[in-house]
Formats: sequence, C-alpha cells, structure tokens
Amino acid sequence: MPELNLNDIAARLESLEETIIHRLIDRAQWRLNDNAYLQGASGFPGAEQRSLFELRLHSQEEMDAKFGRFCVPEERPFNRDLPKPLRAVSLPDTGVNLKDYDTVNLTEPLLNSYMLILPKICLAGDDGQYGSSVEHDVYAIQAIARRVHYGAIYVAESKFRQDPEGYKKLVETRNRDGLMERLTRKDVEKKIIERVKTKVKNLQAKVNKSIRNTVRYEPIIVYYRDLLIPLTKHGEIVYLFNRVENDSVQN
Amino acid sequence: MPELNLNDIAARLESLEETIIHRLIDRAQWRLNDNAYLQGASGFPGAEQRSLFELRLHSQEEMDAKFGRFCVPEERPFNRDLPKPLRAVSLPDTGVNLKDYDTVNLTEPLLNSYMLILPKICLAGDDGQYGSSVEHDVYAIQAIARRVHYGAIYVAESKFRQDPEGYKKLVETRNRDGLMERLTRKDVEKKIIERVKTKVKNLQAKVNKSIRNTVRYEPIIVYYRDLLIPLTKHGEIVYLFNRVENDSVQN
Repeated sequence: MPELNLNDIAARLESLEETIIHRLIDRAQWRLNDNAYLQGASGFPGAEQRSLFELRLHSQEEMDAKFGRFCVPEERPFNRDLPKPLRAVSLPDTGVNLKDYDTVNLTEPLLNSYMLILPKICLAGDDGQYGSSVEHDVYAIQAIARRVHYGAIYVAESKFRQDPEGYKKLVETRNRDGLMERLTRKDVEKKIIERVKTKVKNLQAKVNKSIRNTVRYEPIIVYYRDLLIPLTKHGEIVYLFNRVENDSVQN
Repeated sequence: MPELNLNDIAARLESLEETIIHRLIDRAQWRLNDNAYLQGASGFPGAEQRSLFELRLHSQEEMDAKFGRFCVPEERPFNRDLPKPLRAVSLPDTGVNLKDYDTVNLTEPLLNSYMLILPKICLAGDDGQYGSSVEHDVYAIQAIARRVHYGAIYVAESKFRQDPEGYKKLVETRNRDGLMERLTRKDVEKKIIERVKTKVKNLQAKVNKSIRNTVRYEPIIVYYRDLLIPLTKHGEIVYLFNRVENDSVQN
C-alpha cells in the first residue's frame, strides 16, 4: 500500500486549483448565454428534456467513460447511464479504501454550485456562442469535480492513517461534529483562499484586457470558501464512514 | 458584409495564442508517453489500426461535429468521416468568401508538426497516464488548428479587401512569390514571437515548480516561427486562390 503523504496530496490539490482557475478564465471569454442552459432549447431532435449544456456534459462523459476516465478514484461522472471502458486501465495501487467509488459522490451539489458561480464570472448577455460556452463549462466542471473528489478521498485516507483508532471511534459513535472538528484545519483553509486570490490575480496580471475578459477573484474565493472546501470535508466524512464500515466487514 | 478590421483579427489571434500556451503547459504536466501514439497499443477492441491519440481525436471530433463546431469557418476537423450537426447553427455573416471551408485545410501538416513539438515540451518517459495525455493533446491541437485556420482565412480576406485588384492580378498570374511577399510582414512576425516568449514566461512566473512541470519558451517560439506562421501564410495563399476563382465563377 502506498504511503499517502499529506504534503504530496496538498501539492496535487494546488496543481488542480491552477487548472480550475485556467478553465474558469477560459469560460469567461464568452457571455453567460442563458439559452445554453434552458431545457428544450438545444435544437437537438428528440432531446427536449435536456439543455445544450446537459447534452454536452453527457456526450463528454460517454466518450470519457469509453476511454476509462472513471476507473480513476477521483474522477466521478455527473451522469449514470454511461458505457463501460473500451480499454483495460491498470492503475498502480492508489491506497484508496473504498469498495465503490460512487459512495463518495458530490456531483449534484457541485453542479448546482457551478451554476451559481457562472453569472459571477461571465459577462451577462448572449453572444450566440453556445457551443463554445458549454464546451468550456464541461472542462471547468470536470476540473472542479476532480479537485473535490480527490481531496475528499485522499485527504481523509491520509488523515485516517495517522490515527485509525481515533477516527474509528468517531465513526462508530456517529460523532459527525467530532469528525468535522478533527478534519478542519482553519490555517490551511485560510492559506488556500489566499493562494487562490493570488493565482487569479497573477494569471491575469499581464493580460491584454482589450481582447480577453478578466475574472475577479472575489467570487472565486467565495466559491472555494463556501462551497468547494465544505463539500470536500463533507466528502471526507462520507469516505471515513464507508472506510470504517469496509474494515468491519472485512474483520 | 461585415468589416474585417486587421487590428480586430490580430487581437483575436493574440487571444488564441494565450489559449494555445495554456494548453501546451497543461499537456506538459504528463510525460511523453510514447505508447499513447503507437498504433495498435490503445487496447480498444477492433481498433488495431489506430493509436489511443487517434481514437481520442476521432471521438472528440465526432462529438464536436454533432454540436456544430465545424460550421464555424476557422474550425477544421482532422478527420473526415464525421456526423452532421444535430442542431442548426446560425452564424452572423462572417465575411469569409469560401464556398467550401475544406479547401483551406492544414490539418495534416499541423498534426505532423504537433508530434514534433511534443517531445520538446514533455518530460521523456512513461507515467501510465495515457488517457490524460491524449485528452490534453486534443485540447492543444484543436486550439492550434483554430489559430492557423482563423489566421489563414481572416487575414487573407482582410488584406484582399485592401487591394482587390492587386491580389487578383497576383493570383491570375499565379505569382506565388509575389503573394508571399505581399502577405509577409516581418515586423508583425517578430512581434508575435516576442509576445509568445513573454507569455510563456509570464504564465509560469509564479508557479510552484515542485508540483507543476514548466515549459521552456524556446521550442514554442521555434514552433511559431518555423511552423505556425509559415503554415498560416500558406493557408492565406490557398484562400486567395480560391477566393479569386469563386469571384470569376460568379461574374
């Protein structure tokens, strides 16, 4: 079983954070384009129940499923009716203790919260570029989901290993508040928020504003503070409950 | 017919350049992963003639075709056996004078040249992450193709309008050298190269090198200077030949 060093995990989370910011900036190059999110407005025959965004996300995940993306513990699809991989994906032992990855699934709140941040990063209005808008939505939301599920699973597993008995007891007594307290590191959260702010500014510092829309850092740090970080911790608790139950079944 | 201002076109090219650099940096987060480019090594049943990269590019373009990407003049697919769009894409008049977009098609040299730059931006070796590698290859090569086709078509059309008679004469006398001379602006090319260099440096200036691979600017500026800029000008000439022939047929 691989060693899961909390510093390595934090470094990977920081790299994913960079990707998320790149992709939100890319999405913001188009207008909000409400029509792309309206059910029945996609123009796809026979797809009256879905928006263009939903259709794009589904198509992307169909393709990704065939290529084996969802064999990776931190990749969680937003859709359920997906094909099996067409290739064998062999991963090294990840160290993750989860029989069914889908037990840690935060896609629904992630989707809802993405829709809330969109009007805060995109200019209002309609530029007709619905295809490009939803293409970049999908890239952004995949990066966000990867970050939150990666954090939930790997941070929880790594912390559990530091004190298995302590975490077992908290789970067995169903002490969610106690778990939340142990999983919360205010200083780390504060550092993440500061870093996100700096990254959003740095990545756009030298940009030519007459040709690129820029994104303010405020909505992105609120998104991190009020949604992504709490959702990650919620996922950590779900992971720990499942991990301890797996262990009891095995023993 | 819209006015095609050369400054607006240059601004759009600069924005596309930023996207290209983002995507090359993203691809460089994985190793070179030779196996992903070997025919017959994809693991996909019945796809022994294609590499994982070729399969991914084809899948992406199938999806994109259904969503209408290739109705846009500067979007040119690398594959030909693609489905029709499932939605009606209505574009404003683009001002492009080309009956069949496919007459300006630089995808083959673009694909070959991408394969040449890959070992210069990625670390050698194999990290097993073939799926992620080819996913990011596709994002990068799509951005590159968009830039070159956009430049070829719109720059040529805009220049043609500045002196229709002059360009017509050069085309009708099949004076390719004369056309190349008129289309070449050494000062602009030099400025682009300088700007690419600065962007590659700026975008990575504050990055945490212990968690992100960085990309040197040298191979990227060589790629721009020796491949992307000459290919764009070649595309401009092809465009002008077709444009003038279209005109003669109509008159």
